Amino acid sequence: QNITHMQSTTPFSGAVRLGILGGGQLGKMIIDEVMRYDIFVGTLDPSTQASTAPYAHICRHGDFRKREDVLEFGADFDVLTIEIEDVNTDALRELEAQGKRVYPQPDVIDIFRDKSVQKEFYRKHAIPTSDFVILENKPTDWDDFPVVWKAATGGYDGKGVKLLRGKSDLVDLPDGRCVMEELVPIAKEIGVIVSRNVSGEIAVFPPVEMEFHPEANLVELVFAPANISAEQSAEAERLARILAEKTRIVGTLAVELFLDNDGNFIVNESAPRVHNSGHLSIEACYTSQFEQHVRAILDLPLGDTSLIMPAAMGNVVGEPEYSGKVVYLGAEELLRQRGVYLHLYGKTETRPYRKMGHITCLHKSTTQAREIVRSLRQTFKIIAQ
Amino acid sequence: QNITHMQSTTPFSGAVRLGILGGGQLGKMIIDEVMRYDIFVGTLDPSTQASTAPYAHICRHGDFRKREDVLEFGADFDVLTIEIEDVNTDALRELEAQGKRVYPQPDVIDIFRDKSVQKEFYRKHAIPTSDFVILENKPTDWDDFPVVWKAATGGYDGKGVKLLRGKSDLVDLPDGRCVMEELVPIAKEIGVIVSRNVSGEIAVFPPVEMEFHPEANLVELVFAPANISAEQSAEAERLARILAEKTRIVGTLAVELFLDNDGNFIVNESAPRVHNSGHLSIEACYTSQFEQHVRAILDLPLGDTSLIMPAAMGNVVGEPEYSGKVVYLGAEELLRQRGVYLHLYGKTETRPYRKMGHITCLHKSTTQAREIVRSLRQTFKIIAQ
Repeated sequence: QNITHMQSTTPFSGAVRLGILGGGQLGKMIIDEVMRYDIFVGTLDPSTQASTAPYAHICRHGDFRKREDVLEFGADFDVLTIEIEDVNTDALRELEAQGKRVYPQPDVIDIFRDKSVQKEFYRKHAIPTSDFVILENKPTDWDDFPVVWKAATGGYDGKGVKLLRGKSDLVDLPDGRCVMEELVPIAKEIGVIVSRNVSGEIAVFPPVEMEFHPEANLVELVFAPANISAEQSAEAERLARILAEKTRIVGTLAVELFLDNDGNFIVNESAPRVHNSGHLSIEACYTSQFEQHVRAILDLPLGDTSLIMPAAMGNVVGEPEYSGKVVYLGAEELLRQRGVYLHLYGKTETRPYRKMGHITCLHKSTTQAREIVRSLRQTFKIIAQ
Repeated sequence: QNITHMQSTTPFSGAVRLGILGGGQLGKMIIDEVMRYDIFVGTLDPSTQASTAPYAHICRHGDFRKREDVLEFGADFDVLTIEIEDVNTDALRELEAQGKRVYPQPDVIDIFRDKSVQKEFYRKHAIPTSDFVILENKPTDWDDFPVVWKAATGGYDGKGVKLLRGKSDLVDLPDGRCVMEELVPIAKEIGVIVSRNVSGEIAVFPPVEMEFHPEANLVELVFAPANISAEQSAEAERLARILAEKTRIVGTLAVELFLDNDGNFIVNESAPRVHNSGHLSIEACYTSQFEQHVRAILDLPLGDTSLIMPAAMGNVVGEPEYSGKVVYLGAEELLRQRGVYLHLYGKTETRPYRKMGHITCLHKSTTQAREIVRSLRQTFKIIAQ
C-alpha cells in the first residue's frame, strides 16, 4: 500500500485510512458528508447489501461482533470508528494496543453499549437520571408498577424497551440482564449531539425536540430549534458537554434528555455515535454531525454547529403491510417542495417499519417545517413490488 | 443484471443506471449530490486515478473520444450524460438509436463543443453575441486589432483563447479552425445555469458574477447574488431560458454573459453541462446544479433554485512552483470558519494552476463572503511533497 501518514498536515486525499464498523445508513451518510474532503473510508458489515457498499473505498463483509473479523478489518486502517455500539470492544482494545487510533475509545463504547453500566455511570458522576435498579435477569416477582424495563444490551429502534403496567406484563420479557427504571412524567424529549476531538475541543449542536410514533416507538419527527426556553437549551447543552468531559469520549455522543413538567432535565440514554436525532444537521447546520464526527476522530478543528435555518426531520419507514423489493410512491410532490431533502439509505428490501430513509425540511418557520414533513410522510410511501 | 425499469415510479435505489462520460471533479460532485437518492452511477475516464474512481458504482477506464469505448461503456447503462463536451457524439448518436436515453442530446452537444457552430447558432437565433468571423485555419494576414482568437474545439480553462493586440501575436497561434471575435468592453461577467428536463420543464439558477485571474485566465471568484440590478438579473435569466428553449437541451446549460458599459448583455459562450460557475449552488441554493442536472435527465421535477444565503466560491489551484504528490497547507484556519466549505477533487498529483478543489463561503453579506474566500485563498495552499 502506498500510504503516507501526514497527520501533521491533513488527512485529506487518502492520507489517512478510516475504517468504520458497520455499513448501514449512518456509515453511508458519514461517507457522503466527507466525500468533499476525499477521505479514504472503508466499512465492515455482515451484509453484502450494506448501504455503504457502493460508496466506500473498501467494503468488507464480516461481523463486527466477532474478534477475528474486527482484527482483520482493523489491520488495514489507521483510524477506526463505529456506526453501531454493539461491536467487539475487546478486539478494538487489541487494535488500540497495536497502535491503531480507535475512536470512540473501546472503554467509552463499553459504558454506553450496556445500559446498566451507562446508568451507573450517570449515578457515579451525579448526572441527573431516573431512579433505577439493575437485575441480573428479568424480574419474576416485581410489585412496583408502572416501571420501564430495558434490556442491558442489544436494544435499538424501540426493541429492548417496554413499559410494564402490571404483573401480567412480566410474562413475555426475554431473559437477560436488565435495568428497571422509574417512569418519569415527560413534558418533552430533547436530543443533543456533542462532539469532542482528540485534542479535547468540544462542540455541541443546538438541542432538537423529538416526537415519537406511539406504536412503533421510533422517532417520528425531530425539529430544531427545540421549543424550549433559552435557559433550558443552555442546560441541555451543559449536560451534554459534561458527559463528553466526564467520559473523555473522542467522537460523537448523542444524548437523549427528558424534560419533566417542572422544567428539569434528566438524561434518558446516550449513544456513542452519530444518531437519528442529528440527521437534520446535514442541511440545517453549518457543519453536519457526520462531518463533525470525522473531524473529531481525525483531530481536525471542530466545525460551527449553529443552525442555518430551522428544520424538521421525519423518518421514512416501510409501510406496515409490505415486505420485499422496495417501491417508492409519491416522490414527485416531495421533489417539488422548496427546502425539502430526501435521503434514501439504499436498502433494496423493505419491511414493516424498517428505516428506509428520512426527509428533512428547511423553513424559516419551525411550525411550517414540521407541517411539511408531516404532510409528505402521508404522500411519500414505501411499499414493495 | 437484475435491473427493472421503473421510470413510471422513480429512478432511486438503483432502478436506473446512469453513465457519465468523464470522471473528473464534475462527475465526482454529481455522484456526491445524488448519493442521498442512491442513484446507480458509473463513469468512463481514461485515467485510473479519476476523481470518481472511489465513489462510482462502476468506474470504467477508456477514452470518451473513442467510438468503441463509448459504445462499450454505454451498453451497460440506461441513461447517458457528460461532464465534458469533448466526447464522441457519433457514438452517442448510435447509442441513442439503440434506445438509450442520451442527455444532453448528441446534436445539442455538437452545437456547443465547436465554438464556430455555437456562434452561428447564436446568430441564427438572434441571441446577442459579439461580432465574429469563422476561419478554417489560423489567420496569417489579419489587420483588425485588438481581436479575440478562439480555437473552434479543444479549448478549456483559458486554453484555446487569446487576445491578439497586433500582428506579432499571430505567430504563435496553433493551426486549426477558429473564431475571430470582436473585443467587447466588459463591465461584468455574469454566469447563469439553466436546466431543462425531459418533459420540457425549465429552471434557472440565480445569476452569479465572476472575477477572473488575470494571468491564468481561470475563474478566480464567483459570487451570488451578482451585483446587478433586478432588471439585469431578469434579462440574464431570460437569455439563458431562451437558449434552453431554442436548443431544447435536456440537461444543464452554463451560459456566460458579458454585461457591457451600457448595461446590455451579450452571450460569450455556453457549455452543455454542469460548470465551475455553478459550484456555489451546492451549499448556497436549495437545489444544487449537480442534483438538478440528474433530475433533468431522469425526468424528475426540477428543484427550487433560489438562494438560501449569499455566497462566494473560489477555485483552489496548485501553486505555480509545485508539481507532484499533493500536500495541503493551512487547512486548520479554513475548517474553523463558519459557513466555509472545502471541496477537494481527489487529485493526488498537483501541477501549476491545476484545479484541485474549491472553497465556498456562505454569509449574509456577499461582500463578507468574498473577503473570506479571498483571504482563505491566501492561507490555504496546495504544494507538492
